[in-house]
Amino acid sequence: MTNPVLIEVLRGAIVESAHRGSVAVFDGDGKPVWEIGDTAKPVFPRSAVKAIQALPLVESGAADAYGFGNRELALACASHSGEPAHVDLARSMLAKAGLDGSALECGTHWPSNHDAEIALARAGGSPNALHNNCSGKHSGFLCTCVHAGIAHRGYVKPGHGLQDMVRDAMQSVTGAVHGEDQRAIDGCSIPTYAVPLRSFALGFARMATTSGFGPERAKAAKRLLSACMAEPFFVSGSGREDVALMEAAPGRIFTKGGAEGVHCAAIPELGLGIALKCDDGAGRAGEAMVAAVLAKLLRADEALAAKLLELANTPIENRNGAKVGALRPTATLK
Amino acid sequence: MTNPVLIEVLRGAIVESAHRGSVAVFDGDGKPVWEIGDTAKPVFPRSAVKAIQALPLVESGAADAYGFGNRELALACASHSGEPAHVDLARSMLAKAGLDGSALECGTHWPSNHDAEIALARAGGSPNALHNNCSGKHSGFLCTCVHAGIAHRGYVKPGHGLQDMVRDAMQSVTGAVHGEDQRAIDGCSIPTYAVPLRSFALGFARMATTSGFGPERAKAAKRLLSACMAEPFFVSGSGREDVALMEAAPGRIFTKGGAEGVHCAAIPELGLGIALKCDDGAGRAGEAMVAAVLAKLLRADEALAAKLLELANTPIENRNGAKVGALRPTATLK
Repeated sequence: MTNPVLIEVLRGAIVESAHRGSVAVFDGDGKPVWEIGDTAKPVFPRSAVKAIQALPLVESGAADAYGFGNRELALACASHSGEPAHVDLARSMLAKAGLDGSALECGTHWPSNHDAEIALARAGGSPNALHNNCSGKHSGFLCTCVHAGIAHRGYVKPGHGLQDMVRDAMQSVTGAVHGEDQRAIDGCSIPTYAVPLRSFALGFARMATTSGFGPERAKAAKRLLSACMAEPFFVSGSGREDVALMEAAPGRIFTKGGAEGVHCAAIPELGLGIALKCDDGAGRAGEAMVAAVLAKLLRADEALAAKLLELANTPIENRNGAKVGALRPTATLK
Repeated sequence: MTNPVLIEVLRGAIVESAHRGSVAVFDGDGKPVWEIGDTAKPVFPRSAVKAIQALPLVESGAADAYGFGNRELALACASHSGEPAHVDLARSMLAKAGLDGSALECGTHWPSNHDAEIALARAGGSPNALHNNCSGKHSGFLCTCVHAGIAHRGYVKPGHGLQDMVRDAMQSVTGAVHGEDQRAIDGCSIPTYAVPLRSFALGFARMATTSGFGPERAKAAKRLLSACMAEPFFVSGSGREDVALMEAAPGRIFTKGGAEGVHCAAIPELGLGIALKCDDGAGRAGEAMVAAVLAKLLRADEALAAKLLELANTPIENRNGAKVGALRPTATLK
């Protein structure tokens, strides 16, 4: 099955490039509400499922024990930009559990926020693992280990107690078996499992509705999504799509992008979960797709839908700041 | 027409993303040698045709008047990485024509080479137009203007004498009409025209064979391709694909990538020109495609073909430097 073109990239009036993809929208009872393309195909969700992966942090009692509020929980679900506020918060989360950045096993990279990168270099600094976009998630993992009394060394490896907790949460929330033959290694060294795209739509519908969850999980899910929606900067970073989408309708939209063009989202007021993947892995297209899908699902709120559609039509500027093109959702997304 | 998948992106043993594309290989007489997908579709060549756009620099006599050797000519055909050697050479080219960086109209961005970017920031510097990856091409444009006695102000605009010379060269070499309705603005502010992909394959076959060229153009074309093949670093930058491909077989392969997944190439010993585009605009896929196409066309040289195929199978590493996946050409490219 060939997925349809969902996003076109215009230069002037001509389509220069095109992105295909698949979209699944489910309700919390497992009913498909809108599906485009092959939604049964296994997809690595990458960082788009960090909110589900953070359930053990809350459910284990670690988040309460360390006094984590919305910002810490948002950062535990984040692919942050390595801005000073992100780095400082990850450091303080680790400190609560008596750890520091040296416990992180996510690897190191320069801040993805360009201003933060340049400022770090200008100050004569170099990045460490706290700057890694996944350091909040990993700090949450480490806090969970310490609170639960699990030796944290090797916490990124399959078979480690922490990864068992994360996989159990993923399986239970998405309803999809996460088998060894579907496993690969994510950018931050933890396991990632390819399961049908639609499982993630169902998973985020459940995260939003808590349908089928026990009381403890229901509370944890609500708390995590609320934290992300309350503190979008700590889930993402300055000028980024997830912040713009969540700020467009505070408390009404949850979104989280992952590498290779994956995006998950939830609209609590409609009880819907969304998962999509751009076939070719382009982040620009995954971002435009999720904005267009949200605009369609929230079309009853015309002002909001217009704002979301504007985010789907991302302008392309050249090196002199002139607008030379734009991304454009195709009719399939309308 | 749906173009076939040419590059798969593996994570572990599972295909995570896939890139479709089209490929045209022509000889200098206009005979198609190998075509994949829709090669008649208009494509913006972007920076992949800089060697053709540099013909006026040589043909006008400017390159000789200013004493330009291989390095300067390579830089005039380059999308360089903004490393100090690139920036210094662009500055010295402009100085020969009595100009400096303030004459450049390409806009400014930080060096694409990460080490160069960090070094510039650490030194307290900021980028200027000389760091723009197109500053060599623009320096060539400016030198052409000054030598030809054309006022250089506005040299990036359609209708300026310099852009007329560039468009004439493009039309004559590719055989494709470059009409206003096919025009958009490139990243560096000059016009770019969408014409059938196969025209660029024919164009680079002619650049390599000089088939149908008059003596002056034949000499200029040979000189430009030779300069690029002799100094690949000045066409590109440290650690980049075009350098690796051209260094794999010194003097036998010319390649040049452009934005949005376009790649042009030539194999002088076979008299062939190559043009390809990744549908979705991914540079990683365009690079893998051109390596795979070169490997197939040069398969008679088994050692070289193996080296090129290795470049087509780009490994993907995570933030701890572990190999977690790779790009892989599909059977269509074999």
